[in-house]
Amino acid sequence: MLNFNWQIPTKFIFGRGAESHAGEELKALGGTRALIHYGGGSVIRSGLMEKVTKSLDEAGVSYVLLGGAVPNPRDTKVYEGIDLARREKCDCVLAVGGGSAIDSAKAIAHGTVYDGDFWDFWCGRASVQKTLPLGCVLTLSATGSESSNSSVIMQESTHLKRGLATEFNRPKFALLNPEWTATLPPYQVACGATDIMAHVMERYFTNETHVTITDNLCEAVLKTVVEYAPIAVKNPADYDAQAEIMWAGTLAHNDTCGVGREGDWASHQIEHELSGLYDVAHGAGLAVVFPAWMRYTMRHNVMRFARFAVNVFGCEMDFERPEITALNGIERYESFLRSIGMPITFAELGAKAEDIPFLAKNVRRNPDGTTGHFVKLDTKAIEELLRIAVR
Amino acid sequence: MLNFNWQIPTKFIFGRGAESHAGEELKALGGTRALIHYGGGSVIRSGLMEKVTKSLDEAGVSYVLLGGAVPNPRDTKVYEGIDLARREKCDCVLAVGGGSAIDSAKAIAHGTVYDGDFWDFWCGRASVQKTLPLGCVLTLSATGSESSNSSVIMQESTHLKRGLATEFNRPKFALLNPEWTATLPPYQVACGATDIMAHVMERYFTNETHVTITDNLCEAVLKTVVEYAPIAVKNPADYDAQAEIMWAGTLAHNDTCGVGREGDWASHQIEHELSGLYDVAHGAGLAVVFPAWMRYTMRHNVMRFARFAVNVFGCEMDFERPEITALNGIERYESFLRSIGMPITFAELGAKAEDIPFLAKNVRRNPDGTTGHFVKLDTKAIEELLRIAVR
Repeated sequence: MLNFNWQIPTKFIFGRGAESHAGEELKALGGTRALIHYGGGSVIRSGLMEKVTKSLDEAGVSYVLLGGAVPNPRDTKVYEGIDLARREKCDCVLAVGGGSAIDSAKAIAHGTVYDGDFWDFWCGRASVQKTLPLGCVLTLSATGSESSNSSVIMQESTHLKRGLATEFNRPKFALLNPEWTATLPPYQVACGATDIMAHVMERYFTNETHVTITDNLCEAVLKTVVEYAPIAVKNPADYDAQAEIMWAGTLAHNDTCGVGREGDWASHQIEHELSGLYDVAHGAGLAVVFPAWMRYTMRHNVMRFARFAVNVFGCEMDFERPEITALNGIERYESFLRSIGMPITFAELGAKAEDIPFLAKNVRRNPDGTTGHFVKLDTKAIEELLRIAVR
Repeated sequence: MLNFNWQIPTKFIFGRGAESHAGEELKALGGTRALIHYGGGSVIRSGLMEKVTKSLDEAGVSYVLLGGAVPNPRDTKVYEGIDLARREKCDCVLAVGGGSAIDSAKAIAHGTVYDGDFWDFWCGRASVQKTLPLGCVLTLSATGSESSNSSVIMQESTHLKRGLATEFNRPKFALLNPEWTATLPPYQVACGATDIMAHVMERYFTNETHVTITDNLCEAVLKTVVEYAPIAVKNPADYDAQAEIMWAGTLAHNDTCGVGREGDWASHQIEHELSGLYDVAHGAGLAVVFPAWMRYTMRHNVMRFARFAVNVFGCEMDFERPEITALNGIERYESFLRSIGMPITFAELGAKAEDIPFLAKNVRRNPDGTTGHFVKLDTKAIEELLRIAVR
């Protein structure tokens, strides 16, 4: 087990009515005027925004609204938000939506109190030193952004997606009411579940040994998603199923499932290039990349994949031929993805095989030029891996 | 799933060398003079205290020492600590030790800045409104006090043990280095593991349904303890095993394994009377009480106990007679306790059957006069349950 630090200061309020705490929580953080960032009209139509703004009114916190958060959140929207927050003298930020709204809101919170270009942080040219207090009201279980230290933004002019990890990215509070996921399209629920599983699996496939507690926690979260995602996709209004997935999504990405080991984020890095280029849903991109990554890396540690197969998907262990079990687990994972309506091939995603060299070239690298840790992938390896996904 | 709030602000630094951060962490909290509370000479002999005080010296934080924390921590020591902290104008508290030192330190931190008698808080006559910043260096995996909201103190004159739950009880930081558990007597390691399992199981046995994510997390932690406790008891110097148990102990009692449901703390409440009267180790008392509690309550929800048997102890499910599986799980748990050297009968603990009416009478109750939630126990039920433990 590796040494680790772990601190999740985010305050979670989970369950029915959670959104009604927005005002008092912002006020407790010293907020007097909030920039509320959200996506499209769904949070208006559902009645959520009315409940949130009522809560701010009651707490005496004024606000300005900024809609237009989109999947693969854009730098252009962040610049707009920073301008608005400065002009309106906002002293706190509230995201209402899914990971895109929260990720943008993180960037707006940092950028508003920074003299330079916020993109400096995402490019590694500067590190965040201060930010505005940020809270969120979650409407989509997926990215874990509600308490994670990360935020992914796309530079619109180049279609490059870049992630930033910093403790300043953790929201001060997260209001999680599964009811607000009831009207989601099933496809979005499925994309979210796929993202959640990827967050856990990217921590699960590690070369570090003797971290059984974390392995067991990973499997606990994965099993929950495997059990409840099909139910929630079939009926997004199933509160119990959505509640299971919502809390799983939080635990998947606040490092509860990651301590004591080095994860492997190659799948996310590769996927960022896919969704950057084709503007597809992040979860759908992961559904294409992750099984290919597994097939490509399986032989690096067959027993690890066999464990995954047995403990997550309930496969029978083939003690004479563990590679059969390992492969069976990957196939079961692929079947699961298909069962919830996810694409798993390039064609299904709308991606093109001829773009593979371009995609592979742009994937974000470790300082040594490779991507990943479980298996270190160079450009050629990434290309081979992506060709598996062409199928 | 019930609505819940969850916030664990404690900063964890885990692994080799963790203790060397004590000074900088206290300083970051504004501490200039610490009361360091510890137990016996073991933290001196092991060299831990020297490393801790060196770290404080380097950070420019002065300190006074208060030894003498004992299992079942006494109110008398708390009063002594409060006097010392006031006299020496301490502005922060550092516990170095196990749950007893940390629980006492919590009481000292609250009491030092309170005008009345600190026992008011433990008796419910007053609620904590402020406290001194508190950190801890853990030397025993057991109580989870390093990040829990609870503290148990015994009033020496009456032998009554009382627990206090408040967010003010969560230490600001916890330094967890499994190396400092290497010289523990195996019996203490076993008592700690028993306590850890009880903390999880008291959350696991609930009447709330649709909290699969929490069920799965509970089983993840329990399986880890079942796997590694025998290894750590056999060889307390096994870093990997102690690391697994140490982190399990933290997760077991910071409500990671408890959200979304109502737990049942009858076993802890009943045990407090045993260790209060006989001054036995808390873990040993739990090893006697918990199996009896399980046998007494099993018929309330046979399938819950069957799940425990299958998912924690790997029992085969008897689908025709699930009560056989349920009972098998309890027997496996008893065998596990015996295998790590725990008592499971009144006689082995040094308790007396004739004290049962006295013990049962004093157990702390819910407002309705019963104890527990999974099954509500009145005095007669507690007596019957304890008679099972006489065996």
